[in-house]
Amino acid sequence: MSKVGIASYGITKFSKDDSKIESVLLNSTKKLFDNTSNLNQNDIDAVLVSTNDNSKYLAAVLSEMAGIEPKISHSIESLCNSGTNAIVSAYSYITSGLADVVLVSGAERYDSPGQILEWDNSRGEFKHPIFWASIFTKSYKREFSITDEELAIIPVKNHKQAQNNPNAISEKTYSVDDVMNSKKLTDDLRLLDCSRPCTGGASILLASENTCKKFTDTPIWITGIGQKTTSAGFTKNMTFSSMESTQQAAANAIKMSKHTVKEIDVMEVHDAFSVCEPMALESIGFADKGKGLDMIKEMHETNNLKINPRGGLIGAGHPLGATGIAQTIEITQQLQSRANKRQIDDAKIGLVHNMSAASTSSTVLILEK
Amino acid sequence: MSKVGIASYGITKFSKDDSKIESVLLNSTKKLFDNTSNLNQNDIDAVLVSTNDNSKYLAAVLSEMAGIEPKISHSIESLCNSGTNAIVSAYSYITSGLADVVLVSGAERYDSPGQILEWDNSRGEFKHPIFWASIFTKSYKREFSITDEELAIIPVKNHKQAQNNPNAISEKTYSVDDVMNSKKLTDDLRLLDCSRPCTGGASILLASENTCKKFTDTPIWITGIGQKTTSAGFTKNMTFSSMESTQQAAANAIKMSKHTVKEIDVMEVHDAFSVCEPMALESIGFADKGKGLDMIKEMHETNNLKINPRGGLIGAGHPLGATGIAQTIEITQQLQSRANKRQIDDAKIGLVHNMSAASTSSTVLILEK
Repeated sequence: MSKVGIASYGITKFSKDDSKIESVLLNSTKKLFDNTSNLNQNDIDAVLVSTNDNSKYLAAVLSEMAGIEPKISHSIESLCNSGTNAIVSAYSYITSGLADVVLVSGAERYDSPGQILEWDNSRGEFKHPIFWASIFTKSYKREFSITDEELAIIPVKNHKQAQNNPNAISEKTYSVDDVMNSKKLTDDLRLLDCSRPCTGGASILLASENTCKKFTDTPIWITGIGQKTTSAGFTKNMTFSSMESTQQAAANAIKMSKHTVKEIDVMEVHDAFSVCEPMALESIGFADKGKGLDMIKEMHETNNLKINPRGGLIGAGHPLGATGIAQTIEITQQLQSRANKRQIDDAKIGLVHNMSAASTSSTVLILEK
Repeated sequence: MSKVGIASYGITKFSKDDSKIESVLLNSTKKLFDNTSNLNQNDIDAVLVSTNDNSKYLAAVLSEMAGIEPKISHSIESLCNSGTNAIVSAYSYITSGLADVVLVSGAERYDSPGQILEWDNSRGEFKHPIFWASIFTKSYKREFSITDEELAIIPVKNHKQAQNNPNAISEKTYSVDDVMNSKKLTDDLRLLDCSRPCTGGASILLASENTCKKFTDTPIWITGIGQKTTSAGFTKNMTFSSMESTQQAAANAIKMSKHTVKEIDVMEVHDAFSVCEPMALESIGFADKGKGLDMIKEMHETNNLKINPRGGLIGAGHPLGATGIAQTIEITQQLQSRANKRQIDDAKIGLVHNMSAASTSSTVLILEK
């Protein structure tokens, strides 16, 4: 079975832009073509669109706009991890032999309907994820004796790191005091603890081993995949201070890659809210339970960019359907030594963690050069 | 690489039922479990939902309701051929080794937003597919000197055949006069020429070769797959009297199966409107250009059920996201000799044709016992 590689990518600035979803999809696709001198429209066998937008037939629409006539085309939706679901689907089309080259394009508008999950009535009066994030924060603080001020280091770090990401929505840095003084949304959550919904697009081109090498001198390979769905409603979680689906997805991805968690040089973790970053690090196995924040503090104090170098969701912004693809592009750039001011020295193995809805489902990918 | 087989299925009655989309998904999934004595929730690695509904995270919602905790879960949308796109995706997950058993569940409500394609302004004042269907009908009649009365035989045949399908929305037969006297929607299209949007669900279980045999004594194998997207707007079609994407998808599917079109014993073709049935037969290669109607007339007069035995979309109803799956279930039942009054004698090889939006994209599957 062929290896699957990342042959190219394109990404837009994340913003509060009011463009139509079709334009957002096309913009990052155009950038991908601009980045890939010898890519022809006829090379592309499948076009997969990742979005929560209600517009229909977007993969066929994007194909027509970009001059592609693919065999396979459809949209994929799984709330905030739509992007990595689409990447894994592309991987399966290539390894199955049904496609040789797959374009995955993710896009979202700032007013995406994917911010609300009507079905989960256990969220009470809040339809937005703020409710589960608040419960997670309360539980995590209580279980590990952590304060709001300590958690505030996460948005401080991620906004700082985002200043080296030209596509990030964040345009300034914040202090712990700034975070503490930002608008209180619930007892346990302030505005600066939250990633911002925004408009953005990210496209990635996947190809089989030999074809991938035609498009790039620095292919990055997908060597580990793990996915898990435990439920759809957040009260079905076993605990509110760890992420069961992330734990299982990470274990499977790392096992498939034949590496250990200690070998990971750089990672994107799904910091939809401050508390998600330490919880994710612990569930993936980078830190012991309750110790994720110590690791984050140390990274922050030593200017180590290993965790969410592009600023994570909090710093870069969170255009739902584009997020998992943007995370994967960041790790690809890191492994290609093309991350400019965000570059981790000598990064060889990277990890992407992308999840939905209170971590009721997760995807973890391992990438290698 | 493993063969991929159809291990089981479940389908609901197609109707104007007002149930929520989550219930429609669960209903056919429950029927699938009822039909599969030794299937356990833990056997299922992936849950793919096929729908045009705007509700989000439906694959995780269905999983939770059905007690499944899959690795992979997401929704797939490509208007009217969402169902076969999801089936092909399931096929790729299994052949790639990422999944061994995949549940594909399609559902739609009668008021689905997938009936309207805002993007295609070439449809003029009609947002519904009636516009392209009318142009197709006018072109087909003119090019091949065919009359409205002659085309009326298609709904007559398909409503008649639907009377042997317990899940069909159609509950009566019609004469050519009935069709001609039904409400005129455009110069070239009457109400009875149209398939009806409705509420319905259809689920299918796919598995690798050895696992498939654990669940059924009569596995049906997917031996041919062809897909093609030519555009999204219907005026990009090369002609309005043949289906380019169908022609290419069929040629590829038949080639992959190593059979010829003459060997096909039974077929489901996407008769969204009367004229689509002869156009599809011609584009697939069953009939010469302009001769599809002669074939249909002969089948009708000799009571040969080979074309759309369950009544097609016109007789059975058209719940968009469920249609491609319902078509695949029909061919599976035919090859298993479980189609009761609809049974074709000694059917060994069957074909499914499912398309979207004026045949701007098509899927063709070949199934064998």
